[in-house]
Amino acid sequence: MFVERKVREFINVDPLQTGGVLTEDARRMLVEWGDGYSVCDFCEGNLHEIRNPPVKEFVQELAEFLDCDVVRITNGAREGKFAVMHSLAKRNAWVVVDSNAHYSTYLAAERAGLNVAEVPNTGHPEFRIVEDGFAEVIEETRKKGEVVLAVLTYPDGKYGNLPDAKRVIRACHDYGVPVLLNCAYSVGRMEVKAGKLDADFVVGSGHKSMASAGPIGVLGMKEEFAKVVLRRSERFGNKEVELLGCTARGVPLMTLMASFDHVRERVKRWEEEVEKARWFCGKMEEMGFGLLGEKPHNHDLLHFESPQFYEISKRVKARGYFLYKELKKRRIHGIKPGRTRSFKISTYMVPKEKLEIVLEAFKEILEKYQSFITPPK
Amino acid sequence: MFVERKVREFINVDPLQTGGVLTEDARRMLVEWGDGYSVCDFCEGNLHEIRNPPVKEFVQELAEFLDCDVVRITNGAREGKFAVMHSLAKRNAWVVVDSNAHYSTYLAAERAGLNVAEVPNTGHPEFRIVEDGFAEVIEETRKKGEVVLAVLTYPDGKYGNLPDAKRVIRACHDYGVPVLLNCAYSVGRMEVKAGKLDADFVVGSGHKSMASAGPIGVLGMKEEFAKVVLRRSERFGNKEVELLGCTARGVPLMTLMASFDHVRERVKRWEEEVEKARWFCGKMEEMGFGLLGEKPHNHDLLHFESPQFYEISKRVKARGYFLYKELKKRRIHGIKPGRTRSFKISTYMVPKEKLEIVLEAFKEILEKYQSFITPPK
Repeated sequence: MFVERKVREFINVDPLQTGGVLTEDARRMLVEWGDGYSVCDFCEGNLHEIRNPPVKEFVQELAEFLDCDVVRITNGAREGKFAVMHSLAKRNAWVVVDSNAHYSTYLAAERAGLNVAEVPNTGHPEFRIVEDGFAEVIEETRKKGEVVLAVLTYPDGKYGNLPDAKRVIRACHDYGVPVLLNCAYSVGRMEVKAGKLDADFVVGSGHKSMASAGPIGVLGMKEEFAKVVLRRSERFGNKEVELLGCTARGVPLMTLMASFDHVRERVKRWEEEVEKARWFCGKMEEMGFGLLGEKPHNHDLLHFESPQFYEISKRVKARGYFLYKELKKRRIHGIKPGRTRSFKISTYMVPKEKLEIVLEAFKEILEKYQSFITPPK
Repeated sequence: MFVERKVREFINVDPLQTGGVLTEDARRMLVEWGDGYSVCDFCEGNLHEIRNPPVKEFVQELAEFLDCDVVRITNGAREGKFAVMHSLAKRNAWVVVDSNAHYSTYLAAERAGLNVAEVPNTGHPEFRIVEDGFAEVIEETRKKGEVVLAVLTYPDGKYGNLPDAKRVIRACHDYGVPVLLNCAYSVGRMEVKAGKLDADFVVGSGHKSMASAGPIGVLGMKEEFAKVVLRRSERFGNKEVELLGCTARGVPLMTLMASFDHVRERVKRWEEEVEKARWFCGKMEEMGFGLLGEKPHNHDLLHFESPQFYEISKRVKARGYFLYKELKKRRIHGIKPGRTRSFKISTYMVPKEKLEIVLEAFKEILEKYQSFITPPK
């Protein structure tokens, strides 16, 4: 069976996808290493120590890239979060998370049997995480049970907000609480130096932000936590229990490796990406779309309110799907089908000429349905 | 960066790899769906419900193929085992496993905080699992704590032994203990109908036996256990906690789907594969290699004792690596580098002509080093 991916040639502004488009090397690697277990041709027992293909060298370079003592490959960012939480979990313990956290952070905690306490954000329209809230929430939560971990989503996937990580980490460390940075939307897009930030753990996502096939993640940590999180099996002394002995031993890893040179280069051009995102925001605001999240914005993940589209959706046959359909006609992919009140979009690695086509599309759609927005007198 | 896979064109008899060679469709699918999160183009919240690409339809057909009420895609067979064990785990509880179990079964139990009790095998040379041992071991173990699960490795990866699953399952059910079949080496090679066997859980491996890129697994179960293992998040009601909301959303899944038609057909030709494996065993025995595991053998995974090679290794410069090197020269891949005392080999999907080349290679190597085996008088 072969299934064509119809949107493959579309302009892609899907926040989940702009950072995961493969490089040409990665695409070639897919075919070369596609067969099951080919990565294991010469494995001597541990994925991160395989020399051919050069996984070991890659993992060492990745540790440098993330500024972490120890790095492992995981099946995804969420699996990295779970591994950490599951290792640190105790009865009646708590994890403190920012209120913009990804759903998988909550699920990882739930699966690990941890209670979750939330640090608030400033609400509409910026939804900024209140950095100082971490101290307050830890203070309160400690009365109910031990706080074993804090998670900061950096940035979050709802608004693309980048809180002051250093400040959060310092505050948590004051209470002896280790911090995990969820960098699914940053590692591979912008520079993230966990060591410099003094983060205890960092997770990244290959398919989300490192030009890699999925699913695959990276997990970095300080040496002192490796003893706990990467503890070895009692019976199989060379296998790490929390990784079940081995993780992403397949093409996702080979594409992650293939794209790594490109990724290391592209993070240096992050400022250009932020500038382009801001330019795009300006154009959207001129059309009457309101940006949610930090202003000025510091990330390519943009969330716009679009009451005009919502009004239209109430009056057209396709209902909420009209926007998706109009964009599809124009070969633009990435706005979630059914959404009109607000929508997320990413400008990451999308050339300005293509973003102009997207802007033009929104303009055309607004014009086409103008009579539905302002009913004629 | 691009890395060539040097052994790609070799004759491959690696037990980990013979069942994971991609079909042509799967290879095309790799490139078509390689970009990160492309599987999620039209996801509405659950991987197994995606209609485009047709994941939903595939998962339904997979349930039929496995004869299970409910099926999910996992990051691998081990992750499926862990999900089940973690869901059923209690304090001071036990899992009973056969003593030929894969290391990842022990790691899954260890990670889930379960104690492990082992059902013995008959020892050298057949290492047959004593089916009636399950009742005995459960009986004994119950005195120490609750037995929440039994695992039968079907077949095991050491000897390729296929115990009488029905008998084991019946015995365990007599004690109210649910049974998980670890079918990493069977689902996709031979017919496995979990329902017919009355198994409560079954795990399979895409990259090991379903002509798929890795890592990816399948997890099937009876409806009554879906409530426990696939319980939903308290906060995110449409997300399954034990799967952290989503699993193998990438090319491994697309290759698994692409190869499924082929896999359904090939399991019908299993008897031919067994016959070929037995023919190969016969030829090996003629050369003085002794088969470990069941005789007559019922699987393509073969483990031979080779004291001749061990003797040679003590007298040559390459030591234990001489065998690997001799085979590499002949473009044969799959015997673990360094092994000589005994080695595993798989004949699965390897054409007879190629197996003849492998047999010839062994013969040549024995002849070349004959003087090292029987020292001249």
